[in-house]
Amino acid sequence: MTFPLLSPDMKSEFELRLTKVRTAMCDAKCDALLLASTVNLFYLTGGVCRGYFYLPLEGEPIFFMTAPAEPVSQLCIQVRKPEEISAWIKRTPAVVGLETEDLYYSEFMRLAHVFTDSKISDASAPMRRARMTKTAHELYMMRQDGMRQCAVYSRIASCWREDMTDLEFQIEIERLLRLEGNLGYLRVAGPRMEINMGSVLAGPNADAPSPYDFSMGGAGTDPSLPVGACGEIMKPGMSVMVDMNGGFNGYQTDMTRTWLIGEALDDKQLEKAKRAHCSSVEILHALSEYALPGAEIGQMYRIAHSMAEDAGLGANFMGHRHKVKFIGHGVGIELNEQPVVMERNRGCLEENMTLALEPKFVLPGIGALGIENTYVVTPQGLENLTPMDETLGQLL
Amino acid sequence: MTFPLLSPDMKSEFELRLTKVRTAMCDAKCDALLLASTVNLFYLTGGVCRGYFYLPLEGEPIFFMTAPAEPVSQLCIQVRKPEEISAWIKRTPAVVGLETEDLYYSEFMRLAHVFTDSKISDASAPMRRARMTKTAHELYMMRQDGMRQCAVYSRIASCWREDMTDLEFQIEIERLLRLEGNLGYLRVAGPRMEINMGSVLAGPNADAPSPYDFSMGGAGTDPSLPVGACGEIMKPGMSVMVDMNGGFNGYQTDMTRTWLIGEALDDKQLEKAKRAHCSSVEILHALSEYALPGAEIGQMYRIAHSMAEDAGLGANFMGHRHKVKFIGHGVGIELNEQPVVMERNRGCLEENMTLALEPKFVLPGIGALGIENTYVVTPQGLENLTPMDETLGQLL
Repeated sequence: MTFPLLSPDMKSEFELRLTKVRTAMCDAKCDALLLASTVNLFYLTGGVCRGYFYLPLEGEPIFFMTAPAEPVSQLCIQVRKPEEISAWIKRTPAVVGLETEDLYYSEFMRLAHVFTDSKISDASAPMRRARMTKTAHELYMMRQDGMRQCAVYSRIASCWREDMTDLEFQIEIERLLRLEGNLGYLRVAGPRMEINMGSVLAGPNADAPSPYDFSMGGAGTDPSLPVGACGEIMKPGMSVMVDMNGGFNGYQTDMTRTWLIGEALDDKQLEKAKRAHCSSVEILHALSEYALPGAEIGQMYRIAHSMAEDAGLGANFMGHRHKVKFIGHGVGIELNEQPVVMERNRGCLEENMTLALEPKFVLPGIGALGIENTYVVTPQGLENLTPMDETLGQLL
Repeated sequence: MTFPLLSPDMKSEFELRLTKVRTAMCDAKCDALLLASTVNLFYLTGGVCRGYFYLPLEGEPIFFMTAPAEPVSQLCIQVRKPEEISAWIKRTPAVVGLETEDLYYSEFMRLAHVFTDSKISDASAPMRRARMTKTAHELYMMRQDGMRQCAVYSRIASCWREDMTDLEFQIEIERLLRLEGNLGYLRVAGPRMEINMGSVLAGPNADAPSPYDFSMGGAGTDPSLPVGACGEIMKPGMSVMVDMNGGFNGYQTDMTRTWLIGEALDDKQLEKAKRAHCSSVEILHALSEYALPGAEIGQMYRIAHSMAEDAGLGANFMGHRHKVKFIGHGVGIELNEQPVVMERNRGCLEENMTLALEPKFVLPGIGALGIENTYVVTPQGLENLTPMDETLGQLL
């Protein structure tokens, strides 16, 4: 058995993923899953193709394809529509999982009618559970992402010129990312996240609230997409925070770096900006040591929050006028995977989880400060997939 | 009454949209709608904000907001979660519509539980029906889009240089679009459309099938996003078709132009390429005259198909190895709105529908040929919102 859309040298990877998903199915008491979302099909087929992946707890999976593709596996069966699936399923599952969080209502109901004699349960949670820890191959892909994202980030300062707007700055960074191979398309879970290739926040715009679930807000340039850069000129004395997407190969890393513009800050402001930035870096270093497999996830938030408080920056932590209640999130095929690093998460870290950690501060009159890296949880602590100079940069 | 998130000078626009939606609700036999998708909230609030728009057939609408925003209307009520909504609804609707095609199953079910004493029906179809014909204000926004998209398209040839890849060419066009104000984010309906800012297809890549529902395919550069540019060098003798997004203000226009690279084609090939391109332009001109309010939509496809056949290009029409069965689609807030211009659409054109029409050809050995414009249906025929030189360009 191998990925339906990938060459046979990925056989063991496919079997590993099947095992991970089946473990999560057991916990969720599903006898079978029928998957239709792009992200979960990508996870189990190795590509993007219209179709439905049927995975029984026991027995062979079947990939029902409804659009042209070049299958490499014997698992593939061509169907015209999902109603044809039931004829191919020999043993009716008692409980079949469908993706409650990833399929539109109408598609979900259409698939539910394929299984008239089965109880329908949720496939989204077990799939997120399985995808939460990454395989060695997935980590390889994410390391590649991280290296390419770092290569671009190391050239960000060259995009800056005096009197440019935050948006013009972002556009030049987008171009560098795209030339490096960034796919320019961001997969996010859920309906509350709309963004192009990421966010560049300069000065007071970092304090503008946004309706989306991102760590920082920003007014955007149009009422139809109120997030990120607002189109204003970046002025000396502002900070500019760059949180652009690192998606080059179906996986993505998430990374933030921050620069001060010019030398306009007085000593007191400069000290406060540096303190906020250093606090972010120190929080990440503290979390890197704490975050061993088995450590409590909620405690990561508490460590970060308490370090921010100790630095006298509690009011600025994770926003100022508008705050978010998480300091990080899983990342992989989607930007926002499990777990969410927030206080009330009682779960524990597991080896090979990938986490984007982003303890950030918003200082009124200056802007956003801090960094973000993507890490993998290892028995030695966190391994940084986005290693690059973490100091507060200066654009002069 | 005015848009909950827009200033009061848009009062009459808001009332016009309410009337349009209520007309569609009557046809769909809904007594009320509860809307939660970003596109429909944008249509009825004028902005993007987390919340739920409740629209009864009679009486005042209410916008239940769950995230910070700056409402300008008395229609707004702040709630923490949707379960609080029922307490505010004085008259229980007999039939309430929820968005079956725009909400994930879990969110749909959560909202359905708000209305335990109502019959649940579909809100997606009546909303698409209402949004299918545009108001004067929406047409103004789309004309603005079209002008900006044309301004960029008129500079596309300046992005080209010898020996660049299709992807490098696309990246320079993306940059021009972004600098012109393109939001870089494409709203599409349904789960089968993933694309960054559009598609650039050079040479044989136009013939590569894609799993997505776009008019042309393309292999893409990565198995995780198999559509559009493939990263190969654009060589003399290839055509290059540019179909990039024109979304600058919450609305979008859809436009395609095509260029030949170099002068490598022999006379016979050149003649065939020109014939295909001219056929596309002639089809659009024929449709522009046919497409009066009341004309049958399916007949537009038949006119186009028969003109392609008459030009001896039936085998190349709307793809070669892989064909699609439509020549156009509605466009507005989403790239793919109603109606779909395909043979089996028995509906009729209505004044103020906006249509992207894209009769295209794929010639093996050369690539894709043809153009696409976005039009509005008027009593005088189609008005072109993307007017620009339609001839086959040449990149030298």
